[in-house]
Amino acid sequence: MRTITADITGLLEQYQERINARLTRFFDAKIEEASIISKHTRDVVAGAKEYTLRGGKRLRPIFCIYGYKCLSAENEGAIFDAAISLELMQSYLLIHDDIMDEDELRRGRRTFHILCRELCESQFGLNKAHKYGENIAIVGGDLLESYGAEVLATSSFKSEYVQKALAAYAKIVKNVGYGQILDLTAERKGSFSEDEILTIHHLKTASYTIEGPLHIGALLAGATAADLKLLSDYGTPLGLAFQIQDDILGLFGSERKTGKPVGSDIREGKKTLLILHALERCSEAEKAVILTALGNEAVTNDTIEVVRAIVRATGSLDYSRTLVRELTEKAVATISESMFREEAKEFLVKIADFIGRREY
Amino acid sequence: MRTITADITGLLEQYQERINARLTRFFDAKIEEASIISKHTRDVVAGAKEYTLRGGKRLRPIFCIYGYKCLSAENEGAIFDAAISLELMQSYLLIHDDIMDEDELRRGRRTFHILCRELCESQFGLNKAHKYGENIAIVGGDLLESYGAEVLATSSFKSEYVQKALAAYAKIVKNVGYGQILDLTAERKGSFSEDEILTIHHLKTASYTIEGPLHIGALLAGATAADLKLLSDYGTPLGLAFQIQDDILGLFGSERKTGKPVGSDIREGKKTLLILHALERCSEAEKAVILTALGNEAVTNDTIEVVRAIVRATGSLDYSRTLVRELTEKAVATISESMFREEAKEFLVKIADFIGRREY
Repeated sequence: MRTITADITGLLEQYQERINARLTRFFDAKIEEASIISKHTRDVVAGAKEYTLRGGKRLRPIFCIYGYKCLSAENEGAIFDAAISLELMQSYLLIHDDIMDEDELRRGRRTFHILCRELCESQFGLNKAHKYGENIAIVGGDLLESYGAEVLATSSFKSEYVQKALAAYAKIVKNVGYGQILDLTAERKGSFSEDEILTIHHLKTASYTIEGPLHIGALLAGATAADLKLLSDYGTPLGLAFQIQDDILGLFGSERKTGKPVGSDIREGKKTLLILHALERCSEAEKAVILTALGNEAVTNDTIEVVRAIVRATGSLDYSRTLVRELTEKAVATISESMFREEAKEFLVKIADFIGRREY
Repeated sequence: MRTITADITGLLEQYQERINARLTRFFDAKIEEASIISKHTRDVVAGAKEYTLRGGKRLRPIFCIYGYKCLSAENEGAIFDAAISLELMQSYLLIHDDIMDEDELRRGRRTFHILCRELCESQFGLNKAHKYGENIAIVGGDLLESYGAEVLATSSFKSEYVQKALAAYAKIVKNVGYGQILDLTAERKGSFSEDEILTIHHLKTASYTIEGPLHIGALLAGATAADLKLLSDYGTPLGLAFQIQDDILGLFGSERKTGKPVGSDIREGKKTLLILHALERCSEAEKAVILTALGNEAVTNDTIEVVRAIVRATGSLDYSRTLVRELTEKAVATISESMFREEAKEFLVKIADFIGRREY
């Protein structure tokens, strides 16, 4: 297993580098475009470049590239160019998310609306700088969404394929929107059902992170409805596994590896299958501990340790780990039996395995 | 002239009705789609339907339809279907605008974030309802943008044409974004140059209201670069005329006809060519009156009357009216000399005349 992991990590890094190089080139051209209009539009686009390039696993463009490679080995340069649309979409969604959640940090640095607030403070003073920062960030997000669509709309593939890829792009944005409404509402009313969590995961993670990018890539290579169905049968369970693994890391992961403070999911009050499953199986007293800890920013590390113990004792951790394994195996079986190109099948099997085992 | 105006008003009403019927059908299908996910996603989409259908001149879809008719008389149903994408884009931009401006009223009813706040208050209580309303409205806007792209991406025209129309759609969103950054920044720093105002008008009005919609329609009929250039030469001056006429109505228009409270542009601190031109020509004392009135919500009707008198006395009103006439004539001359289809030319001449004379 160690070799496979080392192997896939090396490959992912190579891809990340090539994607980052294209993102850099893209943003430099946009900074030039925005400079012609004014210094301020330039500053916002330069901020968006830094925000996008400061980190990220680039999984979405990589899935897009491999969706394409399932069906075609030609025009590798063009699919890399098109794939960055997914990273632009990602920045757009994160910027708007950060405003909604009032988060101040993203990947260890300032969120976009905070960057824009500081831009305002240094240039125009403190008055209403917070509102100005949020406003510019709403527009900045909108701008990045249009960049992503522009990248696809001007890509060099057959028009028929591009049209379908753009419909898929709009569908991802729509799905994330529906999922986000559900998420905000569930958070507001303070309770989640398993059905709601699964729907949110499907709309916000599976469709957006795996299935959607695979579809866009495959459509740019002329995918049929049957091809898309196969990729959904792979991407949907894998997306869910990805999310559950994320939840496990959010509670049990190492801060050094994930880059997130221990227990941050608890502090943020994130309601996960892991927690829901534990809540259904623990005592009333334990339930009270969990519910008091959830969304409580002042929660202590000791309490988080107690929550962990409950999640372990109720069997919820094992249940979630088993679910991740089963979902991953399902994805692997689907793709292995497919008639897609070997290179792509091999990668999609490895990345599924990586997602099921990842520690960050 | 009365006949032409009556004529065009009747035609616009017919078009508005047909566009509204399609918007209703579209939203009803989306409400159904959103209902499957949850009651809350359904509520948001139903709110977006009411917001979109409560009013509006539908100029953008009408320009899109006539951009198409410049080159083709076929598939009228399909171009009406595609044209509603511009009205969805319009709702998306207005929803985000209303959040940024913290406006509570739009077309005489509640803005979208206020509607969502009230939805929250009635279902989940008052706590953080304002933030919830804004968050849902950010996502609701994003959702409508994806609807607009979906409408175009699934339209039945040649893929090659649809691809170009989608690139034009993304370009409008991008231009409005750049224009909005410039506008927010200029508002924040408290001063505008004539160049800045003209750039904002170009990006936020001319491109978005006239040139862009004409291009999308024309592209769906297979427009050449020369066709697009002609439409820009018509749309850009007409868009500027539209904006200047808007500014004139904002200060001198009748509340009964415009539906906006008298002097609202002054109260909102909108910096217009009309005001800028007056500021450059009036005395220091008059300048002080204008600057104190701008953005002052408590400004009296008497003061607004003084501002009006200054704008008249400096010749700024006459100058703006002349500019509207000259720009409109330029647009009319361009389109009249073109080889476009007669039906479209006739309409584009009449609508230019209408825009130059409109009182609402």
